[in-house]
Amino acid sequence: MDIIDNVVVSQHLSHVRIVMVNTTLPANIGSALRAMKTMGLSKLVLVAPKTYPHPDINALAAGAVDLIEQIEIVETLEEAIKDCHLVFGTSARSRTIPWPLLDARPAAQKSMQAVMQHQQEVAIIFGREDRGLTNEELALANYHVTIPVNSDYGVLNVAQAIQVICYEMRMATLEYVDKETDHQAVMHVTEQDDMHWDEPLVTHEQMEQFYPHIEKMLSEIEFLDPKNPRLLPLRLRRLFGRIQLDRMEYHLLRGIFSRVQALNNGTWKKSENEDRN
Amino acid sequence: MDIIDNVVVSQHLSHVRIVMVNTTLPANIGSALRAMKTMGLSKLVLVAPKTYPHPDINALAAGAVDLIEQIEIVETLEEAIKDCHLVFGTSARSRTIPWPLLDARPAAQKSMQAVMQHQQEVAIIFGREDRGLTNEELALANYHVTIPVNSDYGVLNVAQAIQVICYEMRMATLEYVDKETDHQAVMHVTEQDDMHWDEPLVTHEQMEQFYPHIEKMLSEIEFLDPKNPRLLPLRLRRLFGRIQLDRMEYHLLRGIFSRVQALNNGTWKKSENEDRN
Repeated sequence: MDIIDNVVVSQHLSHVRIVMVNTTLPANIGSALRAMKTMGLSKLVLVAPKTYPHPDINALAAGAVDLIEQIEIVETLEEAIKDCHLVFGTSARSRTIPWPLLDARPAAQKSMQAVMQHQQEVAIIFGREDRGLTNEELALANYHVTIPVNSDYGVLNVAQAIQVICYEMRMATLEYVDKETDHQAVMHVTEQDDMHWDEPLVTHEQMEQFYPHIEKMLSEIEFLDPKNPRLLPLRLRRLFGRIQLDRMEYHLLRGIFSRVQALNNGTWKKSENEDRN
Repeated sequence: MDIIDNVVVSQHLSHVRIVMVNTTLPANIGSALRAMKTMGLSKLVLVAPKTYPHPDINALAAGAVDLIEQIEIVETLEEAIKDCHLVFGTSARSRTIPWPLLDARPAAQKSMQAVMQHQQEVAIIFGREDRGLTNEELALANYHVTIPVNSDYGVLNVAQAIQVICYEMRMATLEYVDKETDHQAVMHVTEQDDMHWDEPLVTHEQMEQFYPHIEKMLSEIEFLDPKNPRLLPLRLRRLFGRIQLDRMEYHLLRGIFSRVQALNNGTWKKSENEDRN
């Protein structure tokens, strides 16, 4: 990802705020800032934090000092979200009244759609370390969001939950930015398209010179019987066909085949070569 | 998600191991176990940990005692991955020679495809806190995997990286399990992974006999200078690492290498062979 894209992504993510309600441990605020900064988010709102400021926040948020300076402290949750269009409350438990509930991934996709298509402000609310959000607080949200964890074990702590949510926000933004850049849907790309490669891959046409070469070499060293090749040519095609050679690898392999041929017909000899050394 | 699904998900995830190399801080091992357990993974392999055992591991892994009991300690990375078919190395930096690189999400999808469609064993390798994995260690992987973070800020620490990877592994598994449950069409798999293969794929341990063989053969025919191999061994690993050879192909290629060696040292001669015909 180049620098311009990274700036664009962070700009979009600046419209998504993390809201922490009544946080007790300064370490969790510090970890939240780190998680946010790593993923490109920048706006943290603390609702009536129990301990603030505190040196542990700065220690754990090392390198995210700019985010510390932007922290907003408010007294009520209503104040934290008053200018938001789309509000998510994080909830591990099912509640008295079922609420529209989204997993972290679709919630992030919905958020970035709101930001990028409708210039909306989004908030994700995280609750107290010990008992989360109250029913009244959850009722202020448009949606509840949950992270689908191992139900035998229990829940993420608030710092971990913030990390997963911020990661999904970044992934959703990257998907949108890629889409805009490429003018095509990129959500489900195949593996090859996902790779970053240093050499161009060879074409089908080049491979049509590769297979005769390896077959000729193998028949010269009598590994392949041209009169009765059996499945060998097919196996070679299947093998090198699924590898998608790059140009360098292609020339490397053809160089090896040529050396073997020269060795076999006597135009290259080990001893001659050693004399030169 | 109901209880049966959760058991099925954990069963699939038991084929994905987390490998931590030369970990210094016990807290990171404890956090890794928590992250794994929360997402349903169970197998942690420690390669020559600096501090083990340590009470901090148990403190941070509270509730994940069963995973502590299953921890495997080995001396070398090779030992940790020898029975694996698909190995990912985590890497934040770009390296001398680019390797097939996947983001966490497609890497998790590829992993769970390998587990669920081909009953393979998968390893994700995480490096030291201060300097990650060495180039030699990264060269043991079929793919490198990266988490697309804010490039202005830097990287996740090892515990955070493990959390994101484990989360993506769980999400990929849930997608598959949902799919199976819904009897829906298989999603977005690449052609290669869709194939039903007729031969078992070779393990990492077998490949560790393959690379010395091809290198020895190439140095015997003086295509490779053992005193100055340059990038050739790395290129060969990259090439054959992403191919995932099956057993038949493996023996076929090693047979070709042996023939070339015999031709080169005179134990096999074309003419002798012709006399017999």
